[in-house]
Amino acid sequence: MKPTDVVGCAELADRIRRQGLAGRLMSAEEAAALIGPDSTIGMSGFTGAGYPKAVPAALARRITAAHEDGRQFTVSVWTGASTAPELDGLLAAADGIDLRMPYQSDPVSRAKINAGEMDYLDLHLSHVAQVVWEGFFGHLDLALVEVAGITEAGELIPSSSVGNNKTWLDLADRVILELNTWQPLELEGMHDIYYGTALPPHRKPIQLASPSDRIGEPYLRCDPDKIVAVVPTHAADRKTEFKEPDGETVQIAGHMLEFLDHEVRHGRLPRTLLPLQSGVGNVANAVLVELDQGPFQPLTAYTEVIQDGMLQLLRSRTLQAASATAVSLSEAGTAELRANIADYRTRIVLRPQEISNHPELVRRLGALAMNGMIEADIYGNVNSTHVMGSRIQNGIGGSGDFARNAYISIFLTPSVAKNGAISCIVPMVSHVDHTEHDVHVIVTEQGLADLRGLSPRRRARQIIERCAHPEYRDALHDYFDRALAAAPGQHTPHKLDEALSWHTRYLSQGTMRAG
Amino acid sequence: MKPTDVVGCAELADRIRRQGLAGRLMSAEEAAALIGPDSTIGMSGFTGAGYPKAVPAALARRITAAHEDGRQFTVSVWTGASTAPELDGLLAAADGIDLRMPYQSDPVSRAKINAGEMDYLDLHLSHVAQVVWEGFFGHLDLALVEVAGITEAGELIPSSSVGNNKTWLDLADRVILELNTWQPLELEGMHDIYYGTALPPHRKPIQLASPSDRIGEPYLRCDPDKIVAVVPTHAADRKTEFKEPDGETVQIAGHMLEFLDHEVRHGRLPRTLLPLQSGVGNVANAVLVELDQGPFQPLTAYTEVIQDGMLQLLRSRTLQAASATAVSLSEAGTAELRANIADYRTRIVLRPQEISNHPELVRRLGALAMNGMIEADIYGNVNSTHVMGSRIQNGIGGSGDFARNAYISIFLTPSVAKNGAISCIVPMVSHVDHTEHDVHVIVTEQGLADLRGLSPRRRARQIIERCAHPEYRDALHDYFDRALAAAPGQHTPHKLDEALSWHTRYLSQGTMRAG
Repeated sequence: MKPTDVVGCAELADRIRRQGLAGRLMSAEEAAALIGPDSTIGMSGFTGAGYPKAVPAALARRITAAHEDGRQFTVSVWTGASTAPELDGLLAAADGIDLRMPYQSDPVSRAKINAGEMDYLDLHLSHVAQVVWEGFFGHLDLALVEVAGITEAGELIPSSSVGNNKTWLDLADRVILELNTWQPLELEGMHDIYYGTALPPHRKPIQLASPSDRIGEPYLRCDPDKIVAVVPTHAADRKTEFKEPDGETVQIAGHMLEFLDHEVRHGRLPRTLLPLQSGVGNVANAVLVELDQGPFQPLTAYTEVIQDGMLQLLRSRTLQAASATAVSLSEAGTAELRANIADYRTRIVLRPQEISNHPELVRRLGALAMNGMIEADIYGNVNSTHVMGSRIQNGIGGSGDFARNAYISIFLTPSVAKNGAISCIVPMVSHVDHTEHDVHVIVTEQGLADLRGLSPRRRARQIIERCAHPEYRDALHDYFDRALAAAPGQHTPHKLDEALSWHTRYLSQGTMRAG
Repeated sequence: MKPTDVVGCAELADRIRRQGLAGRLMSAEEAAALIGPDSTIGMSGFTGAGYPKAVPAALARRITAAHEDGRQFTVSVWTGASTAPELDGLLAAADGIDLRMPYQSDPVSRAKINAGEMDYLDLHLSHVAQVVWEGFFGHLDLALVEVAGITEAGELIPSSSVGNNKTWLDLADRVILELNTWQPLELEGMHDIYYGTALPPHRKPIQLASPSDRIGEPYLRCDPDKIVAVVPTHAADRKTEFKEPDGETVQIAGHMLEFLDHEVRHGRLPRTLLPLQSGVGNVANAVLVELDQGPFQPLTAYTEVIQDGMLQLLRSRTLQAASATAVSLSEAGTAELRANIADYRTRIVLRPQEISNHPELVRRLGALAMNGMIEADIYGNVNSTHVMGSRIQNGIGGSGDFARNAYISIFLTPSVAKNGAISCIVPMVSHVDHTEHDVHVIVTEQGLADLRGLSPRRRARQIIERCAHPEYRDALHDYFDRALAAAPGQHTPHKLDEALSWHTRYLSQGTMRAG
């Protein structure tokens, strides 16, 4: 298949304005043939947006063929964050990944990691560019980056995410571009690529003071001599389904709105709130939908990902401006974005993830961080990553970047999972991603616990009373009472011999319910 | 006793240059009489430096008298960080503290907290000013602040620490100053009080790009009308003893130096390293002493506290400049500081703790964070605060501010405690203050584990082999092997039914040693 079978010549000319790249047009198979075993590849992609859609599949086929020939062939894959089955899924299924970082949410990858067949590094997303520049992770052989176009000057028009693309393009020896004509060319101008980063001791203050500030350039720079292939594609991003809020998520959102209203009335938040950060998923979307009904506006967002809920807020102009590193939408959301892209382009800023998640900026702006979790314990420690302490679910993503530096750090979850067999409020979490020092508010459909200013023992009563499911409340009180009686210290009373017994009971009996 | 019995008139005139304050001179007893029950008091003090030395004792006597009369009398005490027996010790012994925050290291306080008789909030030190300004912690009635002098214009010359004094003076209704003539007046000019902070959405970039940059003023501002008492004192700061490095701490320091040398040779650190942050204690001091012999110079420090080890580095000019929020020295260290204070004043900058520990600045400068800990687990999670999961030791202090934002985040401890009855490397920590995402390097006298780029299972082998005491190494391998066999996921394999068994064994048998 010739590259121009995928995308017509006229369209290509429109998208590749730079002279001299025509000779590097090739198919995904031809491009994948340029990738050798043991390569380290920095790929685009963040929350299923802007990832390469053809070369990874071709590479997976190449790896499978090598394995069938008895040849060793794996690569290390670095991205922005999660991608999609056609990248993580296919490469993991081919046993093609040696080391994966910094985030994934793919079922095949997850199974390989939890089977001990794939190494996975779960990093704060703001840290990735820095640690790669530092050099400890070794040499980056190749950048494989999806773009929407190439300008006359050879700059790259990013697609639906920025992620770590700047870093990959700067550091890699060679570059393979996927030019995806499915991505609207009108994205041009939405991005803000900051080129002021440096390694210490040469770092300077980042002069951003509002979520809508533009401090960089609309394009990614790329040395044209490093581009070894341009692969035309026409393929949609992973669709991120938007689920209408249901009873439980509506209740969670209701508690959130009541809390925000309370803070505004007490003069602790301005009427326009502070920049919203919203994690991925249905609960976050429900809160955003509820905010659209609420009295607070105009709002801003300083977040990682713009999902349907946030696009809706932008559409209604409840949200004035949003900063993120990716736009990750449902089919309907994508249609809406495209229908009004000229307007959205002025109000959405897509940045490198080291900027969208930067501690300096999150702290300065005073984000209101709203993130999901797997479980919290009675003292307010939060587990975002590990099911029953051992199994990785996805990863910490940007939740730590935001929670630690937020003005108010909020974690949300339904109070039970697996039809009630799992309580999301437990005596002690089986893994800690956010410590008691970083969790201000916990919300479930049962209610909201405001932990600020509370010592651990006071937190415990609040969390149990306000957040735990009634079915588990007595057992939690019982644990806490017995810990109070038996613990070797009353600051954070625990009975260590049964602190994790809810998890072991679930593992052996399939439920955390006692007897 | 009259105030001028404590400090002579001439000395007072020299220190209180502002007209109109003479009428507010009074004794500690008279000042303490101005403090009513249920007051919230913001006190100066950070790592046993610059805390008020007379009024707290007088207040403790007043509280004791009230209790003997059957009257309820407690206050809430906020500080910078730890103080000394004459503040935390006396007030806790008098059962005079309702709520204490954000850090303490006093044995009496610790006992009260662990007996459940005193509420204690353990906060990131950089967060304190922000949360108090936000308003959730309620009204600040009184600031009780030690100073070295008062200028003609009514500005306050800070003493040996800055801590949260700016915030307390700005927010409190009334101010009591302790004017301590033991503090050298030549401290004038060492401090840099930044008045550019604000609450979001009004925050601006903090324009500091090097540890020695001065971005503020040498004095604390204070509305003279708020000053209700000036209490003269002449009393030394708590002496922070300097212990000469011994076998174990020398070994830890040796591993650190070897690591730094390795990083420099691989081009990942400049030859002048990056700004040092060093936690409190003997291990930290030993590393600093070793650095004084090392090849790296000139160095800088961006840290919380300047202890003897760092002063020695400044003296030898291995260290060019140091930024901190407190100077906390031994008797000999104090004598050295005073003998050459004109020089030290140009090379030491004391800042508010919200600036000395600010995530924005720690991240920008790329600090090398070296902090002590209680225990680490085989996956690199660190417990800095809780003995056997329940008993608070001191608090997280600034370790989280630095570790999360450091260029390299290092935790150091001897491999065993209590004559070997406690292993500081355990299967699972009993409390988490620093998650696996925030711990790059672990060092014990046994060796150094560089965890960067390692998935959890690889970290476990490294930590056990390099850091655990030989006496516990087999038992750790055994736990890990059985976790690998039994865990419901291979990303972070745990056997939750025995993950905390080392701690419960210690609690029941007085040792973590099996059998």
